[in-house]
Amino acid sequence: MSENVEKVTEQLDQVILDAEGKPLSKKALKKLEKEQEKEKRKQETAARLAAEKAAREANATDCSKGKYGKLPMNQSQERTDQRRERIEDINTERVGETIHFRARVQTARATGSKLCFFMLRQRNSTIQALVSADEQQISKQMVKFATSIPAESIILVEAKIVKAAEPVKSCTIQDVELNIEQLWIVSEAVARLPFTLEDASRPEEAFAQEGAQFSRVNLDTRLDNRIIDLRTITNQAIFRIQSGVCRLFREFLTKNEFIEIHTPKIIGAASEGGANVFKVSYFKGEAFLAQSPQLYKQMCVCGDFERVFEIGSVFRAENSNTHRHMTEFIGLDLEMAFEEHYHEVMYLIGDLFTYIFDGLKTQYRAEIETIRRQYPFEEIEYPPKPLRLEYKDAVALLRENGVEMGDFEDLTTENERFLGKLVKEKYGTDFYMLDKFPLAVRPFYTMPDPSRPGYSNSYDFFIRGEEIMSGAQRIHDPAYLEERAAAVGVEPDTIRSYIDSFRHGAPPHAGGGVGMERVIMLYLNLGNIRKSCMFPRDPKRLEP
Amino acid sequence: MSENVEKVTEQLDQVILDAEGKPLSKKALKKLEKEQEKEKRKQETAARLAAEKAAREANATDCSKGKYGKLPMNQSQERTDQRRERIEDINTERVGETIHFRARVQTARATGSKLCFFMLRQRNSTIQALVSADEQQISKQMVKFATSIPAESIILVEAKIVKAAEPVKSCTIQDVELNIEQLWIVSEAVARLPFTLEDASRPEEAFAQEGAQFSRVNLDTRLDNRIIDLRTITNQAIFRIQSGVCRLFREFLTKNEFIEIHTPKIIGAASEGGANVFKVSYFKGEAFLAQSPQLYKQMCVCGDFERVFEIGSVFRAENSNTHRHMTEFIGLDLEMAFEEHYHEVMYLIGDLFTYIFDGLKTQYRAEIETIRRQYPFEEIEYPPKPLRLEYKDAVALLRENGVEMGDFEDLTTENERFLGKLVKEKYGTDFYMLDKFPLAVRPFYTMPDPSRPGYSNSYDFFIRGEEIMSGAQRIHDPAYLEERAAAVGVEPDTIRSYIDSFRHGAPPHAGGGVGMERVIMLYLNLGNIRKSCMFPRDPKRLEP
Repeated sequence: MSENVEKVTEQLDQVILDAEGKPLSKKALKKLEKEQEKEKRKQETAARLAAEKAAREANATDCSKGKYGKLPMNQSQERTDQRRERIEDINTERVGETIHFRARVQTARATGSKLCFFMLRQRNSTIQALVSADEQQISKQMVKFATSIPAESIILVEAKIVKAAEPVKSCTIQDVELNIEQLWIVSEAVARLPFTLEDASRPEEAFAQEGAQFSRVNLDTRLDNRIIDLRTITNQAIFRIQSGVCRLFREFLTKNEFIEIHTPKIIGAASEGGANVFKVSYFKGEAFLAQSPQLYKQMCVCGDFERVFEIGSVFRAENSNTHRHMTEFIGLDLEMAFEEHYHEVMYLIGDLFTYIFDGLKTQYRAEIETIRRQYPFEEIEYPPKPLRLEYKDAVALLRENGVEMGDFEDLTTENERFLGKLVKEKYGTDFYMLDKFPLAVRPFYTMPDPSRPGYSNSYDFFIRGEEIMSGAQRIHDPAYLEERAAAVGVEPDTIRSYIDSFRHGAPPHAGGGVGMERVIMLYLNLGNIRKSCMFPRDPKRLEP
Repeated sequence: MSENVEKVTEQLDQVILDAEGKPLSKKALKKLEKEQEKEKRKQETAARLAAEKAAREANATDCSKGKYGKLPMNQSQERTDQRRERIEDINTERVGETIHFRARVQTARATGSKLCFFMLRQRNSTIQALVSADEQQISKQMVKFATSIPAESIILVEAKIVKAAEPVKSCTIQDVELNIEQLWIVSEAVARLPFTLEDASRPEEAFAQEGAQFSRVNLDTRLDNRIIDLRTITNQAIFRIQSGVCRLFREFLTKNEFIEIHTPKIIGAASEGGANVFKVSYFKGEAFLAQSPQLYKQMCVCGDFERVFEIGSVFRAENSNTHRHMTEFIGLDLEMAFEEHYHEVMYLIGDLFTYIFDGLKTQYRAEIETIRRQYPFEEIEYPPKPLRLEYKDAVALLRENGVEMGDFEDLTTENERFLGKLVKEKYGTDFYMLDKFPLAVRPFYTMPDPSRPGYSNSYDFFIRGEEIMSGAQRIHDPAYLEERAAAVGVEPDTIRSYIDSFRHGAPPHAGGGVGMERVIMLYLNLGNIRKSCMFPRDPKRLEP
C-alpha cells in the first residue's frame, strides 16, 4: 500500500507532457486526472472484492477465527472483571505469563505476510508486541488484520510475555516483549492523523543529526491538535509533573496548618485599577474576571483563617504575545498572618519550594527522564535552605558586571536573566529569593521597610533567572493604607471597600502568588509556557 | 456604659410631651433633640478631659507601666522568635505556665473597677481571660485600659494558665482560664461592628427559648459583612470542613491513580447550546465562560490520561434565586476510561463519597460538634457500600406511596425529596446512587442502555433527597454520537469539534460532576448553599 502511495506521489510531481511532448493544457490535465481517478477507483473496487472473496474463502479455514476482529461498541453490555494489566508493570520476572490489557497502537509494521510488529502505548509507557503467523494458532489472516489497524486505534490484547532477543531501544519497556494471542479493536481511529506520534515524540537531538530529514511538528500544530499531542509519552510526563506540583504545594501547606479556600472569579468591581481586566455581561449589568485572589485572600486573613491557600484560575486581559504570558493561568496563592516579621512567611514559602523540588526529584524520576529524552535540560541546582539576596546587593552584583542601573530602578527581563546567571556562578543555585524591593516598583499596599527609606518588605522568587513568584508584607493598618494609596496617586475612595476590610482589626500578614505553569516551564526548562499548559489561552488562541 | 445606652433608647421610644401635656410639634421635637445632643456632647467632652487628667496623674504611680498599651504598627521591625501559643492547645496539664499568644477580643466586660473579663478567640477556639487589679503587678489603670479595648481588636497577651473555678460554659476551652500579665493591642478595631460576634454565633435553640429577645443576624447582613461573619467559630468550622472535603476528594482519587488537570474557563464557543452562558469581551472579539469542564475532561481521556479530576470554578448564567443555585460554584469533576462496564466508575465514585464521609466523621469531629451547637442537625447515615437503586424501582417506590408519574418522566425537586425520605425509611441511608435514568432526560452524549430501550447508562447521587452529583457513560463512538445528536435535534455541525475529538480512537469512559458547596450544605444540613460558600454569587449578589 505505502509503495503505491509513493508511486502516485512521484507521478504527480512530474510535469505531464502530451503526445507532442508539450505540457498539457489545464483543461486536458484535469481530464487526465479525472480519468486516472476513475481508473484508480475501478482498480480499488476490484481489489476490495477480491480481498473479500479471499477472506470469505479463508475464513472457513482460519485457525485464528474468534481470536481477532472488531468488538461491538462498548455499551457496558457485561462485566466479567477480567484482570487488565498496566504496561509499566510488565518485566522480566513475569516472562511466560499470559496477560490482558487495553492499549493504543502507536505503530503497526508488517514484515512479509507472516509477521506484524506493534509499538503499543499506555500513558507514559511503550512496549513492543508481535503477531506472528504459525499456521496453528495464529493465521496469516490475523497478521493481515493486525497490519491493517490504523495508528492510534485502541486495542484489547491477550498476549504472552517473552524475553526480548535484544533490548528494544525504541520502547520504554526494553527487556521484554509480547507475543499476541488475541487482538480486538475497541475503538478504531477513523480520521487521518495530523501528525504521527513518532514525529511528535522525536528527541530534539535527532534533528541535529547529519542528514536528518524528519518532519518537525511545530507548537501551533501541536496545540491545534492537542488531543493527539497530549498522547506523547513526553506530554504524559509533563502533565503528571504538573499534577505533582499542585499536590506537593498543597501537601506542604496543609502540614503547615493552611486551609484551602475558593474565592470568586466573577467580581463586581474591577480590581487593581481596571486595566487588563476582562469584562463579563452579568444579567442586565456587567462584571469582571478576577486578576488575582489578592483582596479575597486578605479578607480571609481578616476573617481569622490565619493561613490560607488557593489553586485557581487567574485572568489577565494583557495583549502580551511572549513565551511566558497567557491570558488565563493557574495561580498558586497563599496568604498568612505572622507573629513578628514577614520573614516568617518568606522563609516558609522558600521551604515550600524546596519541598516541591525535592518531591519532584524523588517521586517523579521516571517522568523527568522521559522528558529529558525528548527535550534535554540540566536539572536545577538549589541548596537545602534557599538563598536570600537583598535587592541592593543584586544591583551591586549587576553593576560589578557592567550593568548600569539606579538603586531604585526595576529589573528588566534581560537583567533578571543576567542576574540569574551571576547568582548561579557565585552561589551555585538556580533558585533564590530576592528580598527588599524598592518601594516605588511595588503596589501601594506593600509595607515599606521601616528602617531603610525607599525599600519595602517585599520579595520575588526566581528559577533560572525568571520570576515565578511575587509577594510581600501587606499594609494591615487602614489609615496608613489610605495614606500610601494617596501618596502614589490612587484615589482612596475608589478602593474604599478594600481599605474598609482592615477597619475591624487585621493581623500583620504577608503572602505571595505563584504562576503554576511558569514553575513547570522553568523547572523543566521547556522554553515556552504553552508547553506546560494543557489548553493554553493567549490573545490569539481560544481553541481548542 | 451599656446601661446609659438602654436609658437613651427608652427615652426615644416614648412620645415626648410639652409643658401642657400635648405631644411636641415636629419642629419643637427636633429642637429638643438638638439641645439634648449638644448637652450630651458637652458632658462627654468633660468626662474625657477628666479621664485624661486622671490618667496623667495615675501614670506616675502605675505599677503596670510598660505592661500594656498599643503597639506601634508592625512593619517587621524585629524578629525575636518568641514562642506563640494556640488557644486550642491550652489545657489543665499546663496550669501554672506563662504563655504568649495573639488573639481577638470577642467581648471585654468590666466588673467594678478592678476586674475585666475577656472572651478571647482564635480560629475555632475561645477561652476566658481576666485582668484583675492587685495594686502590685496589675494596676486599676491597666484594668481600665483592658475594658476600653473595642471588640474584635487583635491583642498580644502574656498570661498564666489557671484552673477555672467552674466550667466556663460560654467558651470552647472550659476547664482552664488565663490571668493576663501583659496586654498589648496589635490592631484596634476602629469601625463600628455591623453586628456582634455573640449575636452571629448564637445557637438556633436560644431563639426558641421563652422570652428570648436576641437579635438574629440574617443571612444577607452576614454576607454583606462577610469578613466579620467568617470569624464566628461556626464559620471557621464550616470552611475547615470545606477544605477537608476537597482534600479527601483528591486524596482518594490520587490513591486511585487519577491525575489533577486544569482546563480553560474562557472558551471560544458556547458549550452545550449556548443557553445560560456568560459572555466575555475578549480583546476585539468575544468569548464565553465554561459551564463545566465536560468537553475538556473527555478530551483528556482521549488524550490518554485515563483518569483525571479537576477542582475548578464553574459558571452558570441561570436566573435562579433558590436555596441551592449560585452563578459561580466549585465543581469537583472526574472522568475515567473503564475496561468493561461503567459501573467500574460509578462504584468508584460511590466509594469516593464513603471515603469523604468517613474522613469528615473521624478527622473533623470537633468542627462538626461546633457547627451542631449553632445549627443542630442529624448526622447522615450511610452503609459501608453505597446503595444503588434503579430509576424504575425508584418510580415504583414513589407510586406505591401515592405519587403519579410516568416511567420516563423526570423527577421533580419535590419528588426527589420525597424519594429521599422513602429510601431513608426503607434502606436506612441518607446517601444513595440512582442508576439507569431515562434516556430522554439526559444530554445527547449519554450512552443508552443496550438492553432496555428508553433507559441510559447514567446516574445521579443524592444526600438527604437532594442531588449532589450527575454522571454517566459517555458515547465514545463518533458516528453514533452524531446519530444521537441528530435524533434529539442537535445539529451535528454545531458540535463538530466535540464529535471530532473521538475520531482518533477513544476508550469507553464515564465520569461525573459534583457541586462542592452542595455536598457541604447537605452533609451539614445548612439549608442554604450561601452558607457553604465564602463569597457567594447569585443573580443579585456580586459583592463582597
